[in-house]
Amino acid sequence: MRQAATTLVIETSGAGLVEVTVPIRRWVAGQGLETGLLTVFCRHTSASLTIQENADPDVQADLLRFFRRLVPETQSLYDHTAEGPDDMPAHIRSALTGVSLSIPVMDGAPALGTWQGVYLFEHRARPHRREIVLHLFGE
Amino acid sequence: MRQAATTLVIETSGAGLVEVTVPIRRWVAGQGLETGLLTVFCRHTSASLTIQENADPDVQADLLRFFRRLVPETQSLYDHTAEGPDDMPAHIRSALTGVSLSIPVMDGAPALGTWQGVYLFEHRARPHRREIVLHLFGE
Amino acid sequence: MRQAATTLVIETSGAGLVEVTVPIRRWVAGQGLETGLLTVFCRHTSASLTIQENADPDVQADLLRFFRRLVPETQSLYDHTAEGPDDMPAHIRSALTGVSLSIPVMDGAPALGTWQGVYLFEHRARPHRREIVLHLFGE
Repeated sequence: MRQAATTLVIETSGAGLVEVTVPIRRWVAGQGLETGLLTVFCRHTSASLTIQENADPDVQADLLRFFRRLVPETQSLYDHTAEGPDDMPAHIRSALTGVSLSIPVMDGAPALGTWQGVYLFEHRARPHRREIVLHLFGE
Repeated sequence: MRQAATTLVIETSGAGLVEVTVPIRRWVAGQGLETGLLTVFCRHTSASLTIQENADPDVQADLLRFFRRLVPETQSLYDHTAEGPDDMPAHIRSALTGVSLSIPVMDGAPALGTWQGVYLFEHRARPHRREIVLHLFGE
Repeated sequence: MRQAATTLVIETSGAGLVEVTVPIRRWVAGQGLETGLLTVFCRHTSASLTIQENADPDVQADLLRFFRRLVPETQSLYDHTAEGPDDMPAHIRSALTGVSLSIPVMDGAPALGTWQGVYLFEHRARPHRREIVLHLFGE
């Protein structure tokens, strides 16, 4: 049994989903493990991680729109407004989607389903530099 | 330290929660590990995993009803409609509940609380065949 | 590679977030591992775990208020009412935020971002005694 860890840096271009499946798969493949466990962790409180359909880009747009409706940027709803009208909604959207994913590794690759892609979900309006930690162990 | 992995196939009968605690407990018990970590991963984007009260079946019905209200099947809200009126709401409900669970193993069993059961949450209207990957390691 | 597990007991004072970052960091530091994986698991169905901003306490108040609006305690919405008007909403809020977190450990500490704190999210109105299981492995 052995382990490895690394940090990916993702530049986002404002609110929306950024697929990170390819760099994750590439790093896992490079570790040469057959079976194990992959953890993906987002080091932020206004961006999160989600696994979503990777076929139709409309899914990502619909998801973004849903979270905008569900957690509106109406300032009167929040006390925490000093960092901008999109900040507190971003924290709430992160809490709803989560910042860690655990994905088993089988046959040398993450055991994602056919239609599953891993996405960084940027909740802030402006571009940000985001760090995702990957941890892998197995044999 | 050693590890094991397997895939459970669950047949759902349309939208609702299917308890999977018993087959998970049985598989973990069969591995003969005292302490470790269990990962449960759902390989789909329109079904998810949740840990919920396992005593009163009303809890499951109330949960299903809540998610139907929160994420309505109103077609005009979504662009991704080609796969049916229940498909995009299913993706959103999956994003809100998540597809991976990490459960410590102590004394040879998942360290679930007294009232906690593990459920596959089917979000599509029709029956589906769902795959859940289990990964366990420890000693 | 080695592992350790323990249970933290947290006394809550009714609905709200209780930061548990310090006891978690202390326990991890005491294990003397350099790199590994930390799992945090909440053994309840009416309390959950979330990673949130640890700087401005308004964030916690806003988060609590959001979940109260999103999942109202209106009894007519639920069948499961025998355990009190706050019980079914507590189950739903737990499903939305989750009961497990996976956090990589690097340089001997959980790889949390600068502004990330780990919180137990109590969803019941009255004080409760909550158990959180920590599992760590690595080397």
